[in-house]
Parts: sequence; structure tokens; C-alpha cells
Amino acid sequence: VKLAHLGENTIIAALTRGLSRGPRLRVGIGDDCAVIGSPRDAVWGLLKADAVIEGIHFRRDTDLRRVGWKALCRAISDIAAMGGLPEHALVTVAVSPETRLEEMKALYAGLRSAARRFHVSIVGGETSRSPGPLFINIALTGSVERVCCTTRAGGRPGDILYVTGRLGGSLRGKHLSFIPRLAEARWLVTHFKVHAMIDISDGLAADLPRLAEASRCAFCLDESRVPRSAGSTTEEALTDGEDFELLFAVSPRHAKKLEHDWRRKFVRLPLTRIGVLLKKSAPEQTRLRTHGFDHFA
Amino acid sequence: VKLAHLGENTIIAALTRGLSRGPRLRVGIGDDCAVIGSPRDAVWGLLKADAVIEGIHFRRDTDLRRVGWKALCRAISDIAAMGGLPEHALVTVAVSPETRLEEMKALYAGLRSAARRFHVSIVGGETSRSPGPLFINIALTGSVERVCCTTRAGGRPGDILYVTGRLGGSLRGKHLSFIPRLAEARWLVTHFKVHAMIDISDGLAADLPRLAEASRCAFCLDESRVPRSAGSTTEEALTDGEDFELLFAVSPRHAKKLEHDWRRKFVRLPLTRIGVLLKKSAPEQTRLRTHGFDHFA
Repeated sequence: VKLAHLGENTIIAALTRGLSRGPRLRVGIGDDCAVIGSPRDAVWGLLKADAVIEGIHFRRDTDLRRVGWKALCRAISDIAAMGGLPEHALVTVAVSPETRLEEMKALYAGLRSAARRFHVSIVGGETSRSPGPLFINIALTGSVERVCCTTRAGGRPGDILYVTGRLGGSLRGKHLSFIPRLAEARWLVTHFKVHAMIDISDGLAADLPRLAEASRCAFCLDESRVPRSAGSTTEEALTDGEDFELLFAVSPRHAKKLEHDWRRKFVRLPLTRIGVLLKKSAPEQTRLRTHGFDHFA
Repeated sequence: VKLAHLGENTIIAALTRGLSRGPRLRVGIGDDCAVIGSPRDAVWGLLKADAVIEGIHFRRDTDLRRVGWKALCRAISDIAAMGGLPEHALVTVAVSPETRLEEMKALYAGLRSAARRFHVSIVGGETSRSPGPLFINIALTGSVERVCCTTRAGGRPGDILYVTGRLGGSLRGKHLSFIPRLAEARWLVTHFKVHAMIDISDGLAADLPRLAEASRCAFCLDESRVPRSAGSTTEEALTDGEDFELLFAVSPRHAKKLEHDWRRKFVRLPLTRIGVLLKKSAPEQTRLRTHGFDHFA
């Protein structure tokens, strides 16, 4: 069987069965980051690796400064989605010898500028030859207070589902210049009990079912409420992917205060109720008619 | 200027100037791993990222089980060269959709088998589509007691230079099945004051000058003493690369006991004196006539 004939989830399940163990591992394969620590530690370590590849995540003619920004910010977004703060990054680059030094400098300028903005230290990595496409991998560490650590798995029936910002149309430019919702996520986990959180990378239609599944819940999504970016249809808002907005679940008891405080704190970034988590047996469960991005479909 | 017209060291220097800072960083760009911790911490964190790429580090027809082994063991070898123990790994794979699932399973079987042998937990990663070559990146964490942490930079004039095993001819097979010298390195740093250490990945002719340079020393190498693998010339032993043996510097006061204890502990693995570190102004400095592997030359 070729990978092209299998879904991404099937491939990952086949490869990683039995992996993801170890005495200090709290969350591994299947969440935004690996979480490492013992139940008594006040602070847990976070670990994320993520790649961007020419021809898949960006085109040959893209300004490499923006590619560098995107590469680091994708990983920062995953650390944010756990409620954590990023710390140290390693950059691995594989590049054709035909590439000009100026292009590589532009790539690193983008990496540096994201590192500066989000207080990440780039502490090393490797530069290797590539037989073709440019390949950039980021390994990023972070940390999160145990009480703030937020996985996909803690959602409960009745929780309100929120999404930050507006979704869809990222390929028109946002995917290269988005702002990871680090400040927003940190504010959320330090002021409220967020039950579950994920960053939307493959589209709401792919990532909402992941959060619900990890939380052993069904969900109801009001598609008409999904906030759309200018010029996007609801379909695009659900499936385009690379939004890098936050999707999270909070008890209805805290919803009113959260919405009020959010509007005062983040004046220009909308926060939208888009649905609720439900008991898994609930008959009202809405099945999404559309699917988000699958790397191998 | 294209990268092909510059040496690897020039490229890395141009890209990483001003990087590698941060309050908790002890060693960053330019050593085998990044070392993170405060001067008071008893244990420091280690962080390494390393990639293997089809067409550069292995051929299309190579058994992917061996490629998986190699990918993880390269990073383990770098952790070993700092005197540390590996802990958690993230695996990023970019693969063409035309690849068969069985091949990917073989790759993971190799990764698992290295992880099992060296007590590494594979805790996550990402699988993405590649427009062509197979690309595997390993991000590996580790830890090292502060007193055992060994960089390239601590060598002193007069130190004896040792190398483990035999060098050269790795492309004939060893580069896919080598054993990272983790047990040996741990034994060394816990029983002796090792001043400087590096794993030989680009060939002794490239890596010895790196150790000497980081230690601000000159060196004298007795080329006739360099231990050659069966069928290798001295030239090959110096320049082939991917040996993944240890090169380290120890005070002459401890040399005799070290050699004696080594022979009893590691009966089948030779340990060879190959030279000494010298004062930088020393007139006896031997310039190597050959060069190790340069990724862009």
C-alpha cells in the first residue's frame, strides 16, 4: 500500500503504535507537543518538532524571510496551544548547493525576527546539503506550569467551544505572516480553567474532531457562527487550514466572565463561541460534512 | 555567491552570527549539542537536532531499517560526546506519497530498535509529504551532570589525544550500523577528567582541528598511529567521515591509568593515542594536509 492511498491518521497510527512511553512522559504522540515531567514537578518541559518544505509549505519564489518566520512560528503556536512558553530552538536546514548565501541570510533573518519577538533563543542546529527542495526543521523546547498545562484531552460535555480570530483563506498570505496566539493562550491558562486547547493548523474541520476525540466527547458546531476571514466562504473557513488560531473548551460557568475580560484585554482580536462539547452518546452530535487538510490525501 | 562556492564553516558563521544567546545557554552553536542550565544546577539539559536525507546520507535502495538506526544513533553519538545520556526524541519525516507503508514501517523499526538499545523514548514528531527525497530529522534531548559535561573547548596544551575504535571506510557499511560510543563516553566522564571530547562525524582531519580550535590549542597528530579500519588507507581514515568514534583529550597525568582501566573495561574496542594538544604558538604544530567532509565543498 502506498501512503497516497491512506489517510494521514492511519499512517501515523501504524507507525507509532507502541511508541510514546517513558517514565517522565505525560503526553506524547497525538497532542500538539510532548509534555515531560513527573506529577510532582511544578513545571513541565515541552518539546515540539515541525518541518516546512519547499513545494509543500511554500513555493520556490517565496521570500525566504517569511518562510523563516513561518517555520519558527508554527512550532511556537504548538507550544502556545499547551499553555506554555517557548524557550530554545534548534534549526536544521537542508539546502541545495545552488542556493545563494543571500537567500539563506533572508531565511535566518525571518527566524531571528520571530525568535526576538517571542523570546526564543536559537541555540544551534545543522546545515546540510539537499538534493533538491529546501527543507527546514525546527525543534523547540518550552515549559509550562503543571497547573496551566492544557492538552486536547481535558474537554467535558457541556463545555463551550471558542475560536480566536478569523478562519480561512490563509494561503492568500496569512500562512507566511501569522502571529502565533502565545500571549492570548498564556492569558487564558493563567486566568481561567481551560479544559482543552489546540491550534488550528489543518482546518477547523480536521482539528475540532481531534480535540473532541481526545476528550472522548461528541460536539455540536454551529457552522454559521464560524468567524470567516475577509473573502472566505464557510467551507474555506472550515477546511483551508494553516489558520494558527486557538480552539479551546471552557466550562459554561466561566463563559460570561471570559468573554467580558477577553474583550477588554484583546480589543482587536475576536473571540467567538462556535459550539459545545457533548456526551459521546448524544444524538445531537453533528458530523462535519467537510474535512480539513490531510497531508497524504 | 552560491553555497557551493563557500565552505560549510563560512556558511554557518555567516548565518549564525549573533545567535546562540540566552540566559540559560552554556554552549550553543559550534559544539556537538546545545547545553542548557544555570551554573548552580547539578544537572544540565542537552539538545540536539540532526537530519539524514536520501541522496546525501543514504541511497534510495538502502534498507530503511538501517536508515532509521543511523538517524537516531547519529544524534545519540552527539549526546554521548558531551558526556551525557539521551532521553526523549522527536522524529520528523517528510516522505513522498508514492512510498509504501511497509518501507515506513521498516524505518520506524530501525528507529525503535536504536531507541530500545540506548533507552531513548520516542515521544512524538510529525509526518509530512515530501516533493521528492525522504527526509528524516531527529530532535533529541538529554542530560548531563554539570561535573561530567564535556565540550570541545576544555583541552589544554600537553593533553594526550585519544581516539576509540578504527577509522575510515565507513561508507562500506558501518555508517548504517555503527554503535554510538555512549557507554564508553559515560564511563570516561564518570571516571576521569576528560578535558575535551567530540564525536568524529566529518573525519578526523575535520574534527580534530575543530576540537583544537575550540580549545585554543595547536595539535600534533602522528598520522602513522591513526587506527585504520580493515582495508582503509591512512588518507581514508583521516577523511572518510561518519566514523562516530570518540576523539578526546586527557591530561598526561591520567593517561597510564586510563589506558590500563580501558583495556580491562572495553576488551574489544581499541583506544589509541594519536597525538597531543600544544600551545597555540608552538612551532611543532602539524597542519593537516588533508580535509574531512565538507557538506558544501
